[in-house]
Amino acid sequence: MLEAVKFGLNKEFRDRFQQALNEHDNTFILQSLEGVNAADITSLLYEFNSVESKYVLDMLSLGIRAEIISALDSDTRGGFLKTYAPEELIAIVDQLDSDDAADILNELPIKVREEILVGLDSVLRSRVIDLLRYDENVAGGLMAKELITARVNWTVVQCIEEIRKQVENVSRFYAVYVVDDQYKLLGRVHLQKLILTDSSTLVKDIYDPELISVQTHLEDTEVASIMRKYDLESVPVVNVYNQLVGRITVDDVLDVITEQADEERQLMSGISEDVEEADSLWRLTRARLPWLLIGIMGGLISVQFIGAFAVDLMRVTAIAFFIPLIQATGGNVGIQSSTIVVQSLANPGFVEERLWGRLRRVFAVALLNGFLLSLIVFLVNLLVGGENQRLFIVVSIALFTVVLIASLVGTLTPLILNKFGFNPALASGPFITTTNDLLGLGVYFLTIHLFL
Amino acid sequence: MLEAVKFGLNKEFRDRFQQALNEHDNTFILQSLEGVNAADITSLLYEFNSVESKYVLDMLSLGIRAEIISALDSDTRGGFLKTYAPEELIAIVDQLDSDDAADILNELPIKVREEILVGLDSVLRSRVIDLLRYDENVAGGLMAKELITARVNWTVVQCIEEIRKQVENVSRFYAVYVVDDQYKLLGRVHLQKLILTDSSTLVKDIYDPELISVQTHLEDTEVASIMRKYDLESVPVVNVYNQLVGRITVDDVLDVITEQADEERQLMSGISEDVEEADSLWRLTRARLPWLLIGIMGGLISVQFIGAFAVDLMRVTAIAFFIPLIQATGGNVGIQSSTIVVQSLANPGFVEERLWGRLRRVFAVALLNGFLLSLIVFLVNLLVGGENQRLFIVVSIALFTVVLIASLVGTLTPLILNKFGFNPALASGPFITTTNDLLGLGVYFLTIHLFL
Repeated sequence: MLEAVKFGLNKEFRDRFQQALNEHDNTFILQSLEGVNAADITSLLYEFNSVESKYVLDMLSLGIRAEIISALDSDTRGGFLKTYAPEELIAIVDQLDSDDAADILNELPIKVREEILVGLDSVLRSRVIDLLRYDENVAGGLMAKELITARVNWTVVQCIEEIRKQVENVSRFYAVYVVDDQYKLLGRVHLQKLILTDSSTLVKDIYDPELISVQTHLEDTEVASIMRKYDLESVPVVNVYNQLVGRITVDDVLDVITEQADEERQLMSGISEDVEEADSLWRLTRARLPWLLIGIMGGLISVQFIGAFAVDLMRVTAIAFFIPLIQATGGNVGIQSSTIVVQSLANPGFVEERLWGRLRRVFAVALLNGFLLSLIVFLVNLLVGGENQRLFIVVSIALFTVVLIASLVGTLTPLILNKFGFNPALASGPFITTTNDLLGLGVYFLTIHLFL
Repeated sequence: MLEAVKFGLNKEFRDRFQQALNEHDNTFILQSLEGVNAADITSLLYEFNSVESKYVLDMLSLGIRAEIISALDSDTRGGFLKTYAPEELIAIVDQLDSDDAADILNELPIKVREEILVGLDSVLRSRVIDLLRYDENVAGGLMAKELITARVNWTVVQCIEEIRKQVENVSRFYAVYVVDDQYKLLGRVHLQKLILTDSSTLVKDIYDPELISVQTHLEDTEVASIMRKYDLESVPVVNVYNQLVGRITVDDVLDVITEQADEERQLMSGISEDVEEADSLWRLTRARLPWLLIGIMGGLISVQFIGAFAVDLMRVTAIAFFIPLIQATGGNVGIQSSTIVVQSLANPGFVEERLWGRLRRVFAVALLNGFLLSLIVFLVNLLVGGENQRLFIVVSIALFTVVLIASLVGTLTPLILNKFGFNPALASGPFITTTNDLLGLGVYFLTIHLFL
């Protein structure tokens, strides 16, 4: 039995494997990978380049090769598949379920895709063509067409016969879907029930009609929410006529959820691509620089802006002391506000919050927080000393106003982004924080100009 | 058949339901909830208070009541369960699987917990007691003890008999675990295989020994990674002697992953509790204020710090213009660096990155980015005009240095936090950004003092 964490994947093994690759020591390579789970081989191959990986893969059985290629992330896979000739690709794709096959074909250049389609087994081909029309981020794009279905007027014996026929084609199934003559979804029968039921019983007497299903156009994050909410390990997909067209298993949804978390993290920190630490210098710079430039731009605008108030600054130098305080507070308040909204959009409650009620509550919290913060700052300033009490009052007024404005902007921005179809986590990213900084500066110097 | 998104949960229904509650219209309440999935009723009840929810729950069957209470999030449930007497709680907990029962008991005061334990069915009691000793964030704390096991020397018929005996107790199972006489885990048999195999066949001839398992002490996030990597819908849990002690199903892991994403989001934005928009004014303020105060503290330190350079400021007012530029850049670079590290810690690769190699690469990227940014800023400053070329050079030197320092601090901080058992996402939160701001200011004014 394999204990996942005990498999010998460590630095020593990797170096030994590298040596074996360099020396073309095929015996070692094959022996060390004998019986190893495809997911573990995939992890191993991430440590080597495309040429070395292809070398290893070509030594393994076709089934394992297909599993590994299917498990690669799409960025890595894109470059890697270029090293394969179309005939090799046909053999690989032919091994896969329709959803994995469609994913890979969607990543290939159209010409290669058409070449492969022509060469596939005809059943798989028609299923894949059916799936290719869906965006990758809707239920239709997640689903596989491999299913085990039973007509409602069958007996348990016929059911089991169907399972016997299909078991080679359908991996990991837990239930048989029950359909009528027009292939409309009626319910399902769990395997555990089939196993315990007398063979002559009719399906229609034992199936469970209480069945959650999703339509092909439902967004992947919605599918994930539904599977999470109802604790489902798989969910059937239907078309607009309620006919059964496919099935989504929970492992695909786990990937959706994790990718969603990664994407949000990147948006919040202003990294424009899915980079990893191990990527090239050029790739890391290309992903990070655009957003840093936006911050720089905002900073340069600030230079001109503050410059316009040079006279005030020369008159009261202490004005400059409080710039970081005002900006940092505006930034923190803004990020907190947008995060609360992003979280609530990610875990939708039952009834949509009315905008007005939401803003009213945000405003109340901002008033309270703003008041407390400005008071504390005023008192500390007095305590620490300094001649300019009037400046202290102005600073506190500006701080209070900044808290109010940052709260409102921080709350509205993700809502607006979401409304227009953008990822609301963008609101916590550098574009918005830069805008917040400028607003904070604007409020501060305006207040100074008015009151000092 | 129920289509999840079509169930009548909307504003009109909620208002109608509220009215029914006010009028104690039990007929309407029972009718409208007839046949509704427990997860949907749970969503509905979040809209009402504890008294109203208890009123509804007490009308429903004990089984549904237990399911709903089990589905509540622990914050809500804590307050809600106080409205139940111990005898009522015993009846509810008795309905649950051992993992859900243990979760609830862990949330109750010890006295209540012991009262309930005494009253439980004896089999459930011993299972729950077994589980209570585990922290909630390890495999032992996630697992349920309800399993279907078969001895390796059984026949398929005996297997099916065991399933028949246990099917009431074990929800959602897909395979039978195979153990030896000491209850050590040997492998498993999928239901689909059992269904198709001749009844006289021996289990030992059909079971699959290639089985991933986890030990009781494994962290929940590790368990989630493993289930995701190997596409598992459930994983058996073993003790140090490799004896089978429990099972974790994928729905629990989905919850772990989502909670992890929520926690990270909160740490990055400085919200100290799991608050939602709908929480009270006091609760929202209490969650947000501490971190805002940290930012304020940093801001007040900046006031003193910049104040110490008042002489330089009066001499060259333009110094103040560039404060936001320097700080914002340091902040953005810092957050990007820490995010890349956090992401790589969340999706661990195969071989641990060596610290030195990591820092070297980070330094190279920082050099490149820092150089490009300082050059761009210098050129723009020249272009826009202004007399003080010397200041422009100083600004660019400071910017370059800030990028380097922020990159290194941003990379090291999550690594250090992770090493000491803290959530590395803390590095993107207000505490670290405030420290980064102060560092940026320090570098800027030091450079000014040295070169201007």
